[in-house]
Amino acid sequence: MKRTPLAPFRFSVAPASAVSLADSVLAPRVEANRAATIPACLKHFEKEHCIDALKLKWRKGDKWFPHIFWDSDVAKVAEGMARELARKPDPALAKQLDRLARLIVSAQQPDGYLNTHFTLVEPEKRWTNLHDWHELYCAGHLIEAAVAHFEATGERFFLDAMRRYADLIAKTFGRKPGQKRGYPGHEEIELALCRLAWTTDETKYLDLAAYFVDERGRKPNYYVKKEGWEEWRLRYLQAHERPRDQREAVGHAVRWTYLCCGMADVADRTGDAGLLDACRAMWENCTQRRMLVTGGIGTDRGSEAFERDFKLDNLTAYAESCAAIGLALFSRRMHEITGEGRYVDAIERALYNGILSGVSLSGDRFFYQNPLSSNADSPYARERQAWFYCSCCPTNFARFLPQVSQLCWAWRPGEVRLCIPAASEFKLESGMKIVVSGSYPYDGAIKIRFEGAFRTARFPGMLGVTKPSKIPPRPFVLSLRIPDWCETFAVAVNGKRLAAKPKDGFVSVERAWKPGDEVALDLAMPVRVLRANDNVAADAGCIALQRGPLVYALESVDNGPALHRLSIPAKQDFKLVPAKGLPKGTVAIAGTAFETTRPGDALYSTAATRTRRRRFVAIPYALWQNRGPAEMQVWTREAQDPAPRP
Amino acid sequence: MKRTPLAPFRFSVAPASAVSLADSVLAPRVEANRAATIPACLKHFEKEHCIDALKLKWRKGDKWFPHIFWDSDVAKVAEGMARELARKPDPALAKQLDRLARLIVSAQQPDGYLNTHFTLVEPEKRWTNLHDWHELYCAGHLIEAAVAHFEATGERFFLDAMRRYADLIAKTFGRKPGQKRGYPGHEEIELALCRLAWTTDETKYLDLAAYFVDERGRKPNYYVKKEGWEEWRLRYLQAHERPRDQREAVGHAVRWTYLCCGMADVADRTGDAGLLDACRAMWENCTQRRMLVTGGIGTDRGSEAFERDFKLDNLTAYAESCAAIGLALFSRRMHEITGEGRYVDAIERALYNGILSGVSLSGDRFFYQNPLSSNADSPYARERQAWFYCSCCPTNFARFLPQVSQLCWAWRPGEVRLCIPAASEFKLESGMKIVVSGSYPYDGAIKIRFEGAFRTARFPGMLGVTKPSKIPPRPFVLSLRIPDWCETFAVAVNGKRLAAKPKDGFVSVERAWKPGDEVALDLAMPVRVLRANDNVAADAGCIALQRGPLVYALESVDNGPALHRLSIPAKQDFKLVPAKGLPKGTVAIAGTAFETTRPGDALYSTAATRTRRRRFVAIPYALWQNRGPAEMQVWTREAQDPAPRP
Repeated sequence: MKRTPLAPFRFSVAPASAVSLADSVLAPRVEANRAATIPACLKHFEKEHCIDALKLKWRKGDKWFPHIFWDSDVAKVAEGMARELARKPDPALAKQLDRLARLIVSAQQPDGYLNTHFTLVEPEKRWTNLHDWHELYCAGHLIEAAVAHFEATGERFFLDAMRRYADLIAKTFGRKPGQKRGYPGHEEIELALCRLAWTTDETKYLDLAAYFVDERGRKPNYYVKKEGWEEWRLRYLQAHERPRDQREAVGHAVRWTYLCCGMADVADRTGDAGLLDACRAMWENCTQRRMLVTGGIGTDRGSEAFERDFKLDNLTAYAESCAAIGLALFSRRMHEITGEGRYVDAIERALYNGILSGVSLSGDRFFYQNPLSSNADSPYARERQAWFYCSCCPTNFARFLPQVSQLCWAWRPGEVRLCIPAASEFKLESGMKIVVSGSYPYDGAIKIRFEGAFRTARFPGMLGVTKPSKIPPRPFVLSLRIPDWCETFAVAVNGKRLAAKPKDGFVSVERAWKPGDEVALDLAMPVRVLRANDNVAADAGCIALQRGPLVYALESVDNGPALHRLSIPAKQDFKLVPAKGLPKGTVAIAGTAFETTRPGDALYSTAATRTRRRRFVAIPYALWQNRGPAEMQVWTREAQDPAPRP
Repeated sequence: MKRTPLAPFRFSVAPASAVSLADSVLAPRVEANRAATIPACLKHFEKEHCIDALKLKWRKGDKWFPHIFWDSDVAKVAEGMARELARKPDPALAKQLDRLARLIVSAQQPDGYLNTHFTLVEPEKRWTNLHDWHELYCAGHLIEAAVAHFEATGERFFLDAMRRYADLIAKTFGRKPGQKRGYPGHEEIELALCRLAWTTDETKYLDLAAYFVDERGRKPNYYVKKEGWEEWRLRYLQAHERPRDQREAVGHAVRWTYLCCGMADVADRTGDAGLLDACRAMWENCTQRRMLVTGGIGTDRGSEAFERDFKLDNLTAYAESCAAIGLALFSRRMHEITGEGRYVDAIERALYNGILSGVSLSGDRFFYQNPLSSNADSPYARERQAWFYCSCCPTNFARFLPQVSQLCWAWRPGEVRLCIPAASEFKLESGMKIVVSGSYPYDGAIKIRFEGAFRTARFPGMLGVTKPSKIPPRPFVLSLRIPDWCETFAVAVNGKRLAAKPKDGFVSVERAWKPGDEVALDLAMPVRVLRANDNVAADAGCIALQRGPLVYALESVDNGPALHRLSIPAKQDFKLVPAKGLPKGTVAIAGTAFETTRPGDALYSTAATRTRRRRFVAIPYALWQNRGPAEMQVWTREAQDPAPRP
């Protein structure tokens, strides 16, 4: 399948087998996923009957029944296992995955249909409630799993089964007579069909993805016609107008991110510039009006949805883990299509903050919600949980974390991009490898060395592309991202400083790179005092601390209870100190705070407050609640100068 | 019926016909109730079929059906009409009330039962769901209406009908064989039965009230036994333990206030000191841990319930109008029993702030919720509404506002108490009257003159007590409340200053008062800068302004939008200015604020904020949203000194 000329500079993710992480923040999380998250998910699948469901064991009267989203959970973990396998061979894991993939396929019906709930419990209701019952959503995750399985193992049985399912869906939905002219309530299948099309080189799956994206929100509206829906219900699932006409991030946040992924994929592969314009505008609205400083999105507690511009409450912010993951997946696509660094800025913000906060360091406990403060008033669980009734978040980590190394690098013929300069390696097909060392994100001094021998002139092909693209053996471009948070930087090649100016967020050096070459990238990393846009009522008078890509939070473990009594002067010499009780190397920020108390027990009184100077310690937000239950806050009142001395 | 010696110093409300208001704040609200609220309610009853329901007109297939709480709404308005009539004769109103009372009675069934829903729609479900279906709650309001009707008109037909209903309830509920050993999910009947007992001099109704109070929460628990409820559900309706063992204000706030009223009434009339102790402790917990500065209670948005100590969010505070009214009714009883002024402090705080905020100056628009800030992020209606699906609040105003004059005064043999020194009159049975003049609550200079002739030695009997209490003709005590907010005061009698010291919140002067005597009460009324207890996270770093009993709020009508950008220095010369667009005489507070903006469009940036000095104007909280939709906030960030000069 040929790409259109919409994105002539298109970048690709680095192949999973070519990149490996060696840093102290991301790499251990990826390892914990393999060692703890995936096994935990599989254990829960057994215990909660998800496996029994795939064995089609359910009978009327059983105390359990296959839930409408169980298949997607299992598929996501299968995808995660495949991605793990692609990252690093492991015969035991391969065997486990083979068993799981065969089990999934065994639940497929003769006509290609695969959904345990509607096969076992309510066969007569197949495709009757597209908006709530998640059939197409589950199908999408099954297809993604099959593609990942094929890429990791080269075996076709799972992929072929899911092609048959996709063929059934293509027969069922569309604009021809006898077809249902509907589309999913929870998007996901659009992006999955694009992956399937790319992997199988079959345009029909891209056509079906384009149909789902393009039929959505058309007038007369499917849901208005079928069920008399009102505007606000349509908005919840981004069906209030055609996606290409949408300009705001609205509705259920996870759905929105998956729709946007699908739109970007379709745009990229069909050359539909209108879809890409809509993606740009919606991304802009999301990240500049409706995103927490941690990259968390979908703040509404009641509906997991976006709220109006600048409504970004902290304690009640929902910020589902899956939504932050979805934002990273969407932003990755936008970077690949446009080459603009700001999309990587968003990936990095979400990754290091609002995504990693969702999983414990141990890898087996999860936050569904990632608010920006937590105390006794919190509406949410204040400790990570082992599992959820709807366990989309744990299973999303299982498949997302193996992709993290691929977010750090991107490439296109003639250019390799270091997007996130965590310690890592990128093996070029030439036999040379690019080795990044340093302590990023805790330190901005990064060394990039070219190592190994130089054998051939080819990059490995992009996943799923059968014929690898040719690139000239030399010279080629090494591009280094200068993050949005970095105001001062330096680049030196083999000890010689370059007067480099970033373009679209990257500094590019073209050179006949050879083993032994060394690039020094220095990103100045002072503590930055952030203030929110003054339309954000929730953060008025408050500051947040960020250093490098890390947003910091105060936790009561370090600061004692009643964090709301603290205020922090913006102008001060913040100190970097080792964080207590967190992984070695974790950098905490210490400084001066003021603690304000009001004497007396009265609920309201005119008593003057007392303010005392004291120390505060802030840790990376993503690491909160890894040392037991605690109060936490990201935004702290700014102490106005000059502060009183005791 | 004799009172027990539990409250030897018991005070009584002033008789409705003996007190009249002449001030500029309360009196117009009471008049608006007569002129607008009551007629509006009656109009809605016609339109919404509540009247048809009482005519037993509903038939299966009708588009409307009698709601389970409709009877209570109609009863509350009938009670309000009766109280209005008792306050001031009005033949047209009397005729209207007579018609309504006869209509209500006409819906009574032969066995005494009166509930339109369970008579018409689900007769088989009578008394089958005590917790949700409000039958006993409706019965309570019907009884209250009947007592008020009797007191206002002297006619017995409504009272006798409700006695028959109470007799049926007494037969149905209790600990004897064949009786249901249950109690209401929504309290109200307890206090109503006490009123009925007192009015009819029938101990059996007091016994039934005591049964409902005392059976509640007993183990084995009725609802656990019957429906397997868990603790948290029991707490919602204060049935988790026996009321006498309860020490916290928990669960649905309106229910809690009505339970407490019933407990205080039963304690007062049976001498049950344990119940009174529980009332004291719960009131303390409520007002010192769980009450907004406006007297609003029940902050939880989802359940209309109390939250944990010090959880007092502003934007999402529910603070139902009915709950503030209930707190005033409970506090009135506690003052009458104990004579302690702090209970009147709570009445006054709720009355002038969290109650009056619930109704428009025009009397025909209502807030169900009374949060302490409101802006585009508000989860609640930002304008008062004409009616609600559940219209308990409008109908509660209809019956509460006629009682306001009776909250200003209290008496017992030998003592008259001026509780709230709004301009008013108290006619003594002696023929003398006590006339209060001044501009309270906007001014603390109050004149109290004894006027008229001196004829007899008796006070009018307390309502419903057939034999008036004897009091000595002279001397008697005039007690003047010194409010909790007042730090400096002066009392002079006939120009001679007294060195008076308040006891339990009152300064008492015993004297053979005679026409022409004049007392000057001066309550210093500076602008007070309040700070919340430092356990209240929501108000950390914030101040609220109070002057006299009035809590002030900033409204965007006076201050422009984005109130969150403002901060106010606590130490400054606040100015009193006329409020624009509000009733003549309304005093606003003006002063210096700082407006902080952060340049740039970025959602988060390190840009330094800019602060400019400007003027702010605050109006009494209760009057917000009487000049069109607006942003509002009670708590404003405190500007730390010294503030920058532009």
